[in-house]
Amino acid sequence: MRKTYSSLGAESLNLILIGFGNVGRALARILWEKIDRLRGLGLSINVTGIFKSNGGFVDSNGLMLGEILEKSEQHKSWVPGASPLSHIEELPCDVVVEMTPTNVRNGEPGVSFIRKALEEGKDVVTSNKGPLVVSMKSLLSLAERKGCFLLYEATVGAAIPIFTVAREFLRHDRIICVEGILNGTTNYILSRMSEDKVSFDDALREAQEMGYAEADPTYDVEGIDAACKLVILANGLMNMDKHLSDVEIEGISRVTPEMIELAEEDGYLVKHVAYLDGEKMEVAPRLVPKNSPLAVGGTFNVITLNTELSGPLTFIGKGAGPRETASAILADIITIAKKRGGIKSGEHVA
Amino acid sequence: MRKTYSSLGAESLNLILIGFGNVGRALARILWEKIDRLRGLGLSINVTGIFKSNGGFVDSNGLMLGEILEKSEQHKSWVPGASPLSHIEELPCDVVVEMTPTNVRNGEPGVSFIRKALEEGKDVVTSNKGPLVVSMKSLLSLAERKGCFLLYEATVGAAIPIFTVAREFLRHDRIICVEGILNGTTNYILSRMSEDKVSFDDALREAQEMGYAEADPTYDVEGIDAACKLVILANGLMNMDKHLSDVEIEGISRVTPEMIELAEEDGYLVKHVAYLDGEKMEVAPRLVPKNSPLAVGGTFNVITLNTELSGPLTFIGKGAGPRETASAILADIITIAKKRGGIKSGEHVA
Repeated sequence: MRKTYSSLGAESLNLILIGFGNVGRALARILWEKIDRLRGLGLSINVTGIFKSNGGFVDSNGLMLGEILEKSEQHKSWVPGASPLSHIEELPCDVVVEMTPTNVRNGEPGVSFIRKALEEGKDVVTSNKGPLVVSMKSLLSLAERKGCFLLYEATVGAAIPIFTVAREFLRHDRIICVEGILNGTTNYILSRMSEDKVSFDDALREAQEMGYAEADPTYDVEGIDAACKLVILANGLMNMDKHLSDVEIEGISRVTPEMIELAEEDGYLVKHVAYLDGEKMEVAPRLVPKNSPLAVGGTFNVITLNTELSGPLTFIGKGAGPRETASAILADIITIAKKRGGIKSGEHVA
Repeated sequence: MRKTYSSLGAESLNLILIGFGNVGRALARILWEKIDRLRGLGLSINVTGIFKSNGGFVDSNGLMLGEILEKSEQHKSWVPGASPLSHIEELPCDVVVEMTPTNVRNGEPGVSFIRKALEEGKDVVTSNKGPLVVSMKSLLSLAERKGCFLLYEATVGAAIPIFTVAREFLRHDRIICVEGILNGTTNYILSRMSEDKVSFDDALREAQEMGYAEADPTYDVEGIDAACKLVILANGLMNMDKHLSDVEIEGISRVTPEMIELAEEDGYLVKHVAYLDGEKMEVAPRLVPKNSPLAVGGTFNVITLNTELSGPLTFIGKGAGPRETASAILADIITIAKKRGGIKSGEHVA
């Protein structure tokens, strides 16, 4: 096992951020805005490197996050062409935060960054589904061999604390099956079709105009994004070794207003439901009773864990959003700081 | 701080259970049924005492739970008149589990049992709202002074892990306000009135027949039970020092089918909503949009935390039930065992 804490003294946790898009910037902003609150928890965070695809901000004494957010590449700490792979070794670093774009074909460049960080004995927090969809088991094994943490709360449902609950609350229990609505765009489209009788094409166009859906909506609408999250849930909650090819996927593009109307006459809604148990993994349009916990509209994500002892437990939250995603990343960072003994855990007052 | 672990060896955690009604019996059954699963976590639990109002089962080497569940007071470990107050000192004991009936007037006998346990340096887990409604702050202060844990996840929403999430996931965030449906009986009654056009009186009678409501339903129907839980949420989540008298309470007995119908025409449901922010605490019938996370039917409980960074997070679960309540108690016991270092925490594989 490695040392408990950083090279800058027992009170400081050194981070390297990889990826500086919406989520990376939101995280930097929160770390900067919440510096006093974090110090109140006994946690002083230094960010020693922030890397983009074309270079990085580097300062082994800790970057000035406010300045960097304002000046971007004009800031004096900017090093064109700097690569995280070499700097993970060189910079003071306790935790590597991996936030590069999702690539579900081969997980790159995230897989390489995470592997390098773990090989160097760094703890890792990621919001990137790609590496986990492609090689979750082998990355978790590597983390375990190295005595490192690899946490990924932000990958599914943004700030929905599903893995935290499994780890901290359900260790004695058994998760029998998982049901969820794991993609906010399809939930928005189906909600609009149901509540306001809008056609699929119009609802999709609207979602694109409002920034919920990409110009190429296939990834959301055909269920691939939801299936990726289901793979991470299967491996993370039920200790499986699943991949995208294990999921039966049906998108929502064939759902018609007539189907929705028929369902509603019988008290049901049409929802794009991801389902997982010991035998089956499936993403498909399904009928959901109107008063069920899954019958939530808008862009919300929903996850229900059906457990042996605790009954059904449902979690609803914004499934996307830079700030919500960054919040989940910061929660994972604090978890690591607590487990490494660098922060008082304050259980007495919950 | 006291020793890390029990007098029976580093691998054993000694419990005393106070209260052996539905919840106490469910906990004993789970501890007995799940012995192998708990050992798999590195946790071996001995129950050295189980106390009822008229005596207790006592064995300092660990009680045979299966036999006691079957034979009850015929079991050889039964000691008529035995009191937990003296046995907390005498028996091997790491954690006292307090499960006596709720008394919201003065919190007794729970307050005395919890106080005694903390004074003796024992960690405490409780499912009893009474002591927390009456004197939560002073009990938490006592726990802190003694370096002991006082956990109470089971008191609100049974197995809904609301305090676990606040402690393990939201330490960096700020809870702005809390909304919830905290009583399953009133939710059942309003759901029946709405979905099946049943009258209040008929729905209440039905709830009584199905065992959801007591013969005297005042405590549920007039909102007192929900208000008690709101007090515990205020103190536990927002670090307040509130009591039952701080809550404005309006029950559901004046809700009419006509009100419900009018609301539905505009896309709303009538729900019995508990609300809490920095200034106000209230339990009252309120209009909730049909597609809102609060619009859940049946006997479910719902809690929404509106947070600064993580967005709105909603948690839904069975708000009552012996097994669900016992499951939350066991989760608290495991939390204590982990924090005391008596169990490996297994974060690497979540």
